[in-house]
Amino acid sequence: MDRLDEVLAHIDANLDAALQRLFALLRIRSISTDPAFAAECRAAAEWHAADLRGIGFDATAHATSGHPIVVGHAREGSTGPSALFYGHYDVQPVDPLALWDHDPFEPRIETRPDGTRIIRARGASDDKGQVMTFVEACRAWKAVTGRLPIPLTILLEGEEESGGASLPPFLEAQADQLRADIALICDTGLWDPATPAITTMLRGLCGEEVTIHAANRDLHSGFYGSAAANPNHVLARILADLHDETGRVALPGFYDGVPELPNALRAQWDQLGFDEAAFLGAIGLSLPAGERGRSTLEMIWSRPTCEINGMGGGYQGEGFKTVIPAQASAKVSFRLVFDQDPHAVRAAFRQHVLARLPADCRAEFKEHGSGRAIAFPVDNPLFARAQQTLGAEWGRPAVFVGAGGSIPVTVALKRTLGMDAILAGFALEDDRIHSPNEKYDLRSFHKGMRSWACILAALAEGR
Amino acid sequence: MDRLDEVLAHIDANLDAALQRLFALLRIRSISTDPAFAAECRAAAEWHAADLRGIGFDATAHATSGHPIVVGHAREGSTGPSALFYGHYDVQPVDPLALWDHDPFEPRIETRPDGTRIIRARGASDDKGQVMTFVEACRAWKAVTGRLPIPLTILLEGEEESGGASLPPFLEAQADQLRADIALICDTGLWDPATPAITTMLRGLCGEEVTIHAANRDLHSGFYGSAAANPNHVLARILADLHDETGRVALPGFYDGVPELPNALRAQWDQLGFDEAAFLGAIGLSLPAGERGRSTLEMIWSRPTCEINGMGGGYQGEGFKTVIPAQASAKVSFRLVFDQDPHAVRAAFRQHVLARLPADCRAEFKEHGSGRAIAFPVDNPLFARAQQTLGAEWGRPAVFVGAGGSIPVTVALKRTLGMDAILAGFALEDDRIHSPNEKYDLRSFHKGMRSWACILAALAEGR
Repeated sequence: MDRLDEVLAHIDANLDAALQRLFALLRIRSISTDPAFAAECRAAAEWHAADLRGIGFDATAHATSGHPIVVGHAREGSTGPSALFYGHYDVQPVDPLALWDHDPFEPRIETRPDGTRIIRARGASDDKGQVMTFVEACRAWKAVTGRLPIPLTILLEGEEESGGASLPPFLEAQADQLRADIALICDTGLWDPATPAITTMLRGLCGEEVTIHAANRDLHSGFYGSAAANPNHVLARILADLHDETGRVALPGFYDGVPELPNALRAQWDQLGFDEAAFLGAIGLSLPAGERGRSTLEMIWSRPTCEINGMGGGYQGEGFKTVIPAQASAKVSFRLVFDQDPHAVRAAFRQHVLARLPADCRAEFKEHGSGRAIAFPVDNPLFARAQQTLGAEWGRPAVFVGAGGSIPVTVALKRTLGMDAILAGFALEDDRIHSPNEKYDLRSFHKGMRSWACILAALAEGR
Repeated sequence: MDRLDEVLAHIDANLDAALQRLFALLRIRSISTDPAFAAECRAAAEWHAADLRGIGFDATAHATSGHPIVVGHAREGSTGPSALFYGHYDVQPVDPLALWDHDPFEPRIETRPDGTRIIRARGASDDKGQVMTFVEACRAWKAVTGRLPIPLTILLEGEEESGGASLPPFLEAQADQLRADIALICDTGLWDPATPAITTMLRGLCGEEVTIHAANRDLHSGFYGSAAANPNHVLARILADLHDETGRVALPGFYDGVPELPNALRAQWDQLGFDEAAFLGAIGLSLPAGERGRSTLEMIWSRPTCEINGMGGGYQGEGFKTVIPAQASAKVSFRLVFDQDPHAVRAAFRQHVLARLPADCRAEFKEHGSGRAIAFPVDNPLFARAQQTLGAEWGRPAVFVGAGGSIPVTVALKRTLGMDAILAGFALEDDRIHSPNEKYDLRSFHKGMRSWACILAALAEGR
């Protein structure tokens, strides 16, 4: 694609306009997990569909039983390996709102003391900013050459942060419309600010919510203390027993299907020069908290985890209230690796709860998403082309890495459509995704657009 | 006091007017633990002072560093043993508000299917309704005879539900003004709807709040899970370890100063015919949750307890959020008996927390009140007179009982002023104090006024 230089120059010259479009998207409060924001999720989907139509995609926001799924096709006018780009337009909740320095949905550019410029808003990094790097790369190709380098479909879902229940049946129903030679996903990070990465191992997820019910009403702890079951106590015991004293998850059978890391991959990871002290130091910690004897990189990439993401029961307001609550609940998530079965993990968790439940208490369970882990065969030549062109654009070889987070769509794409995915993203560790004051470096946004322009060119070379 | 019958008749004839006064008090939202209601606490204090002045008390709402303390004297014109009546005008918070059938501060009378009539409102039982039984008894004596049977001081605080920090220094500073031969307190219950009780044993209290701090911000559990300390895990372990597998509190030294119940008292309690199955059944439970081998009556009256009154960390809203929170916290209260030292218990709790704290986490502690347990020598002749007259009014002997709840003022009155207290109250187990839909039986209110009228007469007989 000898016009790549023109495309990159077009991207450089039109950064401000791209930023204005991203800001418009960031202003839409598309929090998928909270039903109060359903209309805003729909608005974000419609915004994308209209934007894609503007650059020649045949794009529609399809209704689902949850939030809409946007599909845009632009397969005519080009040949070669076809690609399906996946991203999501929904964002995480913003609480605690008090910890934000400004309105999470009023994006702004800030300049840091070191001169770097950042885009500050909920979704700036996860995933609106990342999605727009790809869309803008397409826009630039279209503007400069009148067409896209390869046949493309863009798929944007609105439930990535809330279980993603609508996507698998949609993929199944639309399989023939969506199938392509490779999937492209922009929801991961750089290895470090100077080094691009392609993520080839992703952990799976099993999310569970449990509520322990005891007395039929809140009780005065002076009158009923000790005699009446306290769901806070029952829950604390259940949660404390999730790990043993060595940091291992204590559910029976939890490590079934979890092999030791292959020596070759371990050797490659050892060469990454991962700085454990710096990784933990950046978040104010100094000791790896997980399984004793494992490296931090193993903990976050190749070992399964169990985290209590939320727990609560009784009086949590100002002051004190001597109450024994009628109920207490917790949200627990498991990150899964290799061949762990999310359904077996869920069953083991529920059994763990029931085994610790007093006879006159009751446990209520709620499922919050599940997905297997995935690892891509990196000998697919499309991976090599993407890796090579990323290295050229960044002036430093792109590395194949693992990732602790789950991107369930990768499993669904593999299972339903038989597709591998190239996961290239430009987020940084300090992007504070899912946290207050989320940001995306302006450089990530700019270099991300350029990177996708390069990848599209590199993939086209195989036609 | 041969005019007692006239006084009782006056009470019977003026019940509606008494109810209207109580309703005016119940409409004041005097939640002491929440600073947002400070003005309403002051309003309740001023309401009482004005009301007491209306029946001849020299009454003032005294400013403190917290909420005002109302003191009213009416010591002239009568002789005999003097008494100090204590009550509180503050109430518990009302959350969860959604569980109330109506506005907690818009009192109303409801008629139950069995024909009993109840007063429904926050504070109806604890303690506004109970306080007004005494005030109305005084009002009736004053109306009928022009004076009170004995020299009286009324003391009403506004921090009973929020630690009560202002009262002890106030008692000390005003000792000479407040000291009397006996204290009278109306903040306890009947033994059962037909049997009056005088509470002679009260547990002490030690309230603690602990917050566990880990990372310097909320983290994504996919990226940091396992590697980063999760304060929810640390807290769950701390809380689970508070009890051993036999239900005993596991803090070292916790049972120091806790003797076995004297055989005589145990025998008396055995004769009370306490129905454990009915007690637990009424709240939807069937198994005593506390120390193995102890009776439920022991658990709630004479054994110390440890209850997690509140705990919380991470995402507790709708849906799911894969977050590792920066902090998690819990409110824990200990009910103390006999010679347990609240300060030693607090120190043992803090040591328990620190011993389970990872080196790079931090624990923050907040003290929420403390008070020793108390037991009154029931051979004081004033107790016998009160017991006798209560028995006559109710047509059934009044029993001496223990109580699980703490009334820290009893300790302060004993320590600072050397006074014993007669604790006579008319609350019922199903009053739902501290819970949504608190109520006070109209019969409790009516018979309570009559009971105090009788007790005042009985105490006067000793002059």
